[in-house]
Amino acid sequence: MRNIKLTISYDGTDFWGWQTQPGYRTVQETLEHAIAETTGKRSVLRASGRTDRGTHAVGQVANFYTTCKLDCETFRKAIDFRLPEDISLPDIQDVAISFDANKDAKRKRYRYVIDDSPQGNPFMRRYACRSRFRLDVPKMLSASRPLLGRHDFHSFETGWPNRLSSIRTITHLSVNRVGDLIWIDVEADGFLYNMVRAIAGTLINVGRGFWPEEKVSEILLAEDRTVGGPTAPAHGLYLMRVTYD
Amino acid sequence: MRNIKLTISYDGTDFWGWQTQPGYRTVQETLEHAIAETTGKRSVLRASGRTDRGTHAVGQVANFYTTCKLDCETFRKAIDFRLPEDISLPDIQDVAISFDANKDAKRKRYRYVIDDSPQGNPFMRRYACRSRFRLDVPKMLSASRPLLGRHDFHSFETGWPNRLSSIRTITHLSVNRVGDLIWIDVEADGFLYNMVRAIAGTLINVGRGFWPEEKVSEILLAEDRTVGGPTAPAHGLYLMRVTYD
Repeated sequence: MRNIKLTISYDGTDFWGWQTQPGYRTVQETLEHAIAETTGKRSVLRASGRTDRGTHAVGQVANFYTTCKLDCETFRKAIDFRLPEDISLPDIQDVAISFDANKDAKRKRYRYVIDDSPQGNPFMRRYACRSRFRLDVPKMLSASRPLLGRHDFHSFETGWPNRLSSIRTITHLSVNRVGDLIWIDVEADGFLYNMVRAIAGTLINVGRGFWPEEKVSEILLAEDRTVGGPTAPAHGLYLMRVTYD
Repeated sequence: MRNIKLTISYDGTDFWGWQTQPGYRTVQETLEHAIAETTGKRSVLRASGRTDRGTHAVGQVANFYTTCKLDCETFRKAIDFRLPEDISLPDIQDVAISFDANKDAKRKRYRYVIDDSPQGNPFMRRYACRSRFRLDVPKMLSASRPLLGRHDFHSFETGWPNRLSSIRTITHLSVNRVGDLIWIDVEADGFLYNMVRAIAGTLINVGRGFWPEEKVSEILLAEDRTVGGPTAPAHGLYLMRVTYD
C-alpha cells in the first residue's frame, strides 16, 4: 500500500467547494473520479481542509492510499489527463504511510486578493474582490498588527460554537499593493470558518476610511462576530500552501 | 453634438462577440444600453472592428455621438457604473466630429496567449489557449519572419471571398515566453477574418515540432487556407490596442 500526497491547484469558480456533496460538482468528487479512472479503484481523499464554494487554491494538499504501482510523474500525468481544465496537479509524492494531510498540517497560508482600480479589471472579476473605494494599504497593514500572534479569533469566525476553541496563532500577516491589486497574506497554525474573509472584510473597512485603525483591536477583544467587518466574498480567497514538518 | 471616443476592455468569455445580435448578450448591446441609461438617448456605437465570440479586448476603441454635457471623467464613471463587471472603460475622450473608430484606424495590435505549462494553469483556462506540448519559442519566432511586411494573407483567412483584397501589412510580429505563457503579438494595418488565430495555429504547429520552420513561407505563398494551420481558439485572443493618427 502506498500513501500519496497531492498538491492541487484549482479555480473555485465552477465548484461547490472542496467537499463531496451529492448532486454538486466539487473538487474532491472530481479528483476522486479521475483517480478511480486511473487506478481502477475508488480512493477517498483526505484534504488539509475544506475550501468554500468559489474559493480558489494554488497549493491545496490531500492524501490517499493506493496499490497503484505507477511512478509519481507518470501517475501525476495520468490523473491530470483525466481532470477538467479548472483543476491541476502541480506535484505528487510518496509519503510515509502515517501521513495525514489534515492532522499533520502545521501551518496554512491564505491570500485574499482585492481589485481597487478605478475602472475595475474585467479579467479579475472571478479572481479578486472588487472595491470601488481606493484602499489605504499602509493603514490596513498597520491596523492588522494586533492580529499577529496567539489570540481568540471568535470575532472573526462564522457559525460558532463549532470548534473546541477559537484560539489560533497567526504567524504572518502582510498587506501589499501589487499594481492595481491588494494582497492580504495570512499564515496561521489553523483557521476558523471564514476567518480570512472576516479579516479581509474588516481591513477593507479600515482601508476605505470607514473605520479607524484602532477598531481592529477592539473587535479582537470583543470576541463577538457581530462587531467585526463583513465576510468578504469567497472569490477573492486563495489557499496558497500548507506546511508540514 | 459631441463625438466621444471610448477605450473599452472586456472579458469575452460570456459575450457572443462585439456585434449586436438579437437574443444574445454582446458587448455592443451591453455598452449601448449603459450609455442610453446615462444619456437618456440611444446612441449607436461604431467600433474599430468586431471581435468574435470569446475573444477578449484590452483596448478596443469605439465612438458615438451625443448631446450629453457631462465632462469626460464624470461621463466615464456614470457609464461604467451601469456596466457589468466584465466590461470596463479605461478611457473616454472628446474627438473631432469627423472621427470614425473604424475607418480611421491605422493599425491594430492583437495578442495571442498560449499556456504550455506541463500541468496547465487552471486560472488561465478562459484566458489562454492550452498546449499540452512544450513549444519552441525561438523556432516560432524565426518561422514567423516571412509573415512580416506586405503580403496576400489569403492562407490565413476564413470565409474568403469576403473582402476586396487579402493584402495586408504586418508591421510587428513577436513571440515571447512570459513565465509559462507564450505571447504572440501581431500588429498590422488591418486584419482578415480569423487571421491572428490562423497565424497562431500555424506557429503552434511549428513550435511543437509538427512542421518545419520553412512551412510558414510555403503556406503564405500557397494563398490557400487549407494548407495553413488550424484556427486557434478564440479565448486566447486579445485586441490590445488600436492606433489612430
